[in-house]
Amino acid sequence: MTPQPDSLGNLPADSPGSPLDDRPDACTVGVDFGTLSARAVVVRVRDGAELGSAVHTYRNGVIDRSLPGSETPLPPDWALQDPRDWREALRTAVPEALAAAGVDPSHVIGIGTDFTSCTVLPTTSDGVPLAEQPAWADRPHAWPKLWKHHAAQDQADRINALAHQRGEPWIRRYGGRISAEWQYAKALQVLEEDPPVYAACARWIEAADWIVWQLTGAESRNSCTAGYKGIHQDGAYPSPAYLAGLHPDFADFPATRLEHPLLPLGSCAGTVTTEAAALTGLRPGTPVAVGNVDAHVTAPAAGAVENGRLLAIMGTSTCHVVNSDELADVPGVCGVVDGGIVAGAYGYEAGQSGVGDIFAWWLRQGVPDDYRAAAEAAGEDLHEHLSRIGERQPVGAHGLVALDWMNGNRSTLVDHHLSGVLVGLTLDTRPEDVYRALLEATAFGTRVIIEALEQHGVPVTEFIVAGGLKKNPLLMRIYADVLRRPVSLATSDQGPALGSAIHAAVAAGAYPDVRAAAAHMGGVERSAYLPDPDNADVYDELFAEYRALHDHFGTGGDLLLHRLRRLRNRARARRGGF
Amino acid sequence: MTPQPDSLGNLPADSPGSPLDDRPDACTVGVDFGTLSARAVVVRVRDGAELGSAVHTYRNGVIDRSLPGSETPLPPDWALQDPRDWREALRTAVPEALAAAGVDPSHVIGIGTDFTSCTVLPTTSDGVPLAEQPAWADRPHAWPKLWKHHAAQDQADRINALAHQRGEPWIRRYGGRISAEWQYAKALQVLEEDPPVYAACARWIEAADWIVWQLTGAESRNSCTAGYKGIHQDGAYPSPAYLAGLHPDFADFPATRLEHPLLPLGSCAGTVTTEAAALTGLRPGTPVAVGNVDAHVTAPAAGAVENGRLLAIMGTSTCHVVNSDELADVPGVCGVVDGGIVAGAYGYEAGQSGVGDIFAWWLRQGVPDDYRAAAEAAGEDLHEHLSRIGERQPVGAHGLVALDWMNGNRSTLVDHHLSGVLVGLTLDTRPEDVYRALLEATAFGTRVIIEALEQHGVPVTEFIVAGGLKKNPLLMRIYADVLRRPVSLATSDQGPALGSAIHAAVAAGAYPDVRAAAAHMGGVERSAYLPDPDNADVYDELFAEYRALHDHFGTGGDLLLHRLRRLRNRARARRGGF
Repeated sequence: MTPQPDSLGNLPADSPGSPLDDRPDACTVGVDFGTLSARAVVVRVRDGAELGSAVHTYRNGVIDRSLPGSETPLPPDWALQDPRDWREALRTAVPEALAAAGVDPSHVIGIGTDFTSCTVLPTTSDGVPLAEQPAWADRPHAWPKLWKHHAAQDQADRINALAHQRGEPWIRRYGGRISAEWQYAKALQVLEEDPPVYAACARWIEAADWIVWQLTGAESRNSCTAGYKGIHQDGAYPSPAYLAGLHPDFADFPATRLEHPLLPLGSCAGTVTTEAAALTGLRPGTPVAVGNVDAHVTAPAAGAVENGRLLAIMGTSTCHVVNSDELADVPGVCGVVDGGIVAGAYGYEAGQSGVGDIFAWWLRQGVPDDYRAAAEAAGEDLHEHLSRIGERQPVGAHGLVALDWMNGNRSTLVDHHLSGVLVGLTLDTRPEDVYRALLEATAFGTRVIIEALEQHGVPVTEFIVAGGLKKNPLLMRIYADVLRRPVSLATSDQGPALGSAIHAAVAAGAYPDVRAAAAHMGGVERSAYLPDPDNADVYDELFAEYRALHDHFGTGGDLLLHRLRRLRNRARARRGGF
Repeated sequence: MTPQPDSLGNLPADSPGSPLDDRPDACTVGVDFGTLSARAVVVRVRDGAELGSAVHTYRNGVIDRSLPGSETPLPPDWALQDPRDWREALRTAVPEALAAAGVDPSHVIGIGTDFTSCTVLPTTSDGVPLAEQPAWADRPHAWPKLWKHHAAQDQADRINALAHQRGEPWIRRYGGRISAEWQYAKALQVLEEDPPVYAACARWIEAADWIVWQLTGAESRNSCTAGYKGIHQDGAYPSPAYLAGLHPDFADFPATRLEHPLLPLGSCAGTVTTEAAALTGLRPGTPVAVGNVDAHVTAPAAGAVENGRLLAIMGTSTCHVVNSDELADVPGVCGVVDGGIVAGAYGYEAGQSGVGDIFAWWLRQGVPDDYRAAAEAAGEDLHEHLSRIGERQPVGAHGLVALDWMNGNRSTLVDHHLSGVLVGLTLDTRPEDVYRALLEATAFGTRVIIEALEQHGVPVTEFIVAGGLKKNPLLMRIYADVLRRPVSLATSDQGPALGSAIHAAVAAGAYPDVRAAAAHMGGVERSAYLPDPDNADVYDELFAEYRALHDHFGTGGDLLLHRLRRLRNRARARRGGF
């Protein structure tokens, strides 16, 4: 018999049933739902040892051309996902991770999950995705909108304009700008572009919470996504009067489609149902942690829960999270939420919409045959190869500066109608030059974010990196030099999944809170890379140029990049989509 | 016995010896010395029929890494050539063209040549290149500087500043700016960076004139390069007082190293020596036309000698030449020379430093394997393939604007410290998008030049294209749409070589002047491409964005692109060259 959570979802830490007392080999399972795949990891609760893991790659991945089985092109900037892919990840990755770990399900005392965000979907009142209902399956707006669905910028612009016009107090908590990636812009786009889908949507729910619903059989909502993506501040959603100004039928949006008790991170959302047990191989009744976001959940895994320790989770995109004991308004930061990362601190989130995605884009198209052959001959992948040959050059030798906006700008401009810029090209410019300039551009983008935090009252005392990109030494050295500060590295290679497992341990009552669990289960290698002062001097010069380009192309009323995108979308519409 | 030229180098057109009277199958040979190869063509004088041709690819091509046989890296922006490559072209391409044409040398009544410019070299007083003298061969400054040697920008900046400061009247003839590519900047660089080479240089001579020296055994100088590249205006070179202000030892530069009688285009520079006959297979005594420039020499081959007919010779770079009966000052135009293209008109020259070179750069590095495979499967080269798939998209659909400055800007900014810019990149940007944006960028660059000409009193009534790029239909359609005017095409595929053959016919006395010879031997397909008004409307919008970028990055006192290049060169110097 597993212990039952109290009304806040917490198990009594010192209860007779506390799982570590008599079960030193107790484990939790963490599942991290990413953009292209999901990863499950089995973690020993007493020391965070990662005993086994498995990855499930989504069949339909990012749906940005046409719906599965359809030839009708989606409009520009759309990005959807298929909920069947997520369910399939539970069915395959969890049992495979248990098998890889050699752990019997009876040793698993909890499961935690995290998700990309804001990835959000319309469901029926009992949680069935509209995309899985025959009546709606052929309508794009019925499908889950992935975090990088960027087609709701117009809605976001109006959300922001009206908020400032009415002086809504919550807008300051979001750096002055609600992102087109978030719940309201995406929902308003559905309402305006496909009202019947909006009408059929009983629940508008983060995938982070939807996946927990699949495990527990009951809806739950976490305070993290509600705060950062759902504009829940000081106990309330935006008012009906404000929302009616966006669209009359939008006035009751949160009341009808969002409202639900919010549970703090690390609390227990319920237990694994018989049906979910059959799916995952876990035992029915296993505690399930409340939903979480891939970035935020990583902080305890990477020794980044103390105030001032900024964690950058660097993968296809980068999320930055940092705690502070002060509530500050930081222009352009994604959001500040009380307890948004861990209880007892204001959690700040910022982000860069494209990082590893930008490097991969360049590898896909900027690297000719002979480089591939040379990489293969050297036993390197293309990242390693371009990093190695690009590493030899002195800072500045390629003569390039790039703006890292190929996927828009999440912080601090909060503008997904921006696009990338590459400056300084010559006939002598080679693939490794552009590659390196793109690495540097993302470091400059991070510097903009850190400077904004510090200038507005959020101290950053340490820079910690988690995510796949921490394995690129050139990239880490560039960040150390550009930021002129040491780079610490999360010990785990699967930070979000480990973070989910940590939250699962708390939900199961093995530790009293996330900080305590993090102290036992997380890990960080401090100051793994130190800045080189000479390089840092040159980077100061290059950053000044980046900043000048950033301001030229990124601010102002009528932007060239906006005009270009409008012109592009008009041209594509003439041809009928892409 | 061939007729002898008069003191102006002309053969009497109606003299008893006029070659067409009794020799209807008389031919001339034109040899075009390009950047990577030289092409010889055998042309029938009475109708311009091209009977045979041959190409010789230079062994050392563009020398921009290190001198042949040396590992010592050249500094950034250097570009040299090897005079042995040029001589070898005479030895192989001329006899091969004669053989291909099935023409006996006895039927050849003249030879004409043209060259890239300003390609210039230091020689002894009898024309031996210093690069071929053991004492100097290991010194980079002893070698011919190719037109695209761009390392003398600092010298050019000082040349221009001092000219404006002193109010030198000739500076207006060059759009207010002498190019770093031209004779004075390159010579001043030699003087300042390797004074012994400068001291050993008895003649500083255009390759266009040097190659004629190889054929005739005597120095000659043509009025075209002297005017456009040698600052010879109204009968004089810049004054010693002005030149002394640049460097005390530079005061006598033209008097000691340039001064020589100038011959008009189409005149006879001399006849083929016994030695040159042995080299080329031509008969000794064959008349040799005075040297010419590849761009200017093409005008009569392409029906572009009448006033207002602007000829764009589009290859690795583009040169624009147009005649007018008015002498106007056009800011940023390369130069205006009385009789610089044909006698009796003011010849204007403008240019774009990189065109086909930019497209090729992108093919080298921006096109992945699967595109190569698809092109091969379709039996296309990469240009054809990217053009075909890039052609399908409506104007503006790629969302990009580029600045075509990857090789600097020759007109109208006259600044080789500029570099290329690519704006509007997204993760969805594909190789064909960038390719098409680069095509369009060069069309926008041409529009800037044409607008400058027309706004300053040089009417442009027709746009004619010669050169290899006229074979790309997408490119030609883009030019028609961007310029909103018809595009005419030179009939010949070897315009410069045909132009040289036309000049040879005039030098041999077969026609009284170049216009008359052009009427018989040149050809143009008028209005081969017509603008599409809808596309032209969208291009007006995109051109406005190009213009905004052009002004932002191209004008002003302290340019980001200049700073980037300084930073780049400093970084490269730290590493010791490349």
